[in-house]
Amino acid sequence: MLPSKLPINLTDKFGKFSERRAPHIIAQMNDVHIKCVKAFGEFVWHKHDETDELFFIHKGELTIQYRDGDVHLRTGDLHVVRRGLEHRPVAKEECEVVLIEPAGTVNTGNAGGEMTAHVEPWI
Amino acid sequence: MLPSKLPINLTDKFGKFSERRAPHIIAQMNDVHIKCVKAFGEFVWHKHDETDELFFIHKGELTIQYRDGDVHLRTGDLHVVRRGLEHRPVAKEECEVVLIEPAGTVNTGNAGGEMTAHVEPWI
Repeated sequence: MLPSKLPINLTDKFGKFSERRAPHIIAQMNDVHIKCVKAFGEFVWHKHDETDELFFIHKGELTIQYRDGDVHLRTGDLHVVRRGLEHRPVAKEECEVVLIEPAGTVNTGNAGGEMTAHVEPWI
Repeated sequence: MLPSKLPINLTDKFGKFSERRAPHIIAQMNDVHIKCVKAFGEFVWHKHDETDELFFIHKGELTIQYRDGDVHLRTGDLHVVRRGLEHRPVAKEECEVVLIEPAGTVNTGNAGGEMTAHVEPWI
């Protein structure tokens, strides 16, 4: 059986890294990447003008702040941030998040800055 | 807060229908649909020549049969079936599956037949 035909287990993948805020790619469906990230603290306000971005909470709690209100997400919740909408993810405690978005999407969108992941490793 | 900004909870969504094998759309990210389906029994052998297809197991166990071997998936596993590869999902007991694939992807691919979902409702 080819490696591409093996199961990908989310808990296993989250156990393979400890770095916070850095997206790690675990799978690809067409031109879409599936990424694991350990959110913690306040991320940077940003937007993605070219794409929607899907957040799925594998474990923990995450707040997506918008300019007009917050969305509180818990384990098992998913939420799609629409293109062009400014948002800021905030996690009081470390939260295991699965991101689903086109390959090449930069984590800080239009904002840039020190939280930008210039390389997103495959794990 | 707009409805599009509310959390989407997987357990809630799977509680909204009982029909087996019929995909129900719960979210959209760009041109990609996120669907819930209750797999049960042997599906039909088929392939999708135009697209990959991502399976994520929310609850239960699912086997993806390929012509050269099986992939066994359990809760928390994901797996991407590559375009053009013949496969058949099989679930001995009901299994809650999240499908991630382009909008318009037909569940039976090239095979057609009585298991084809001609309409996939949003829930």
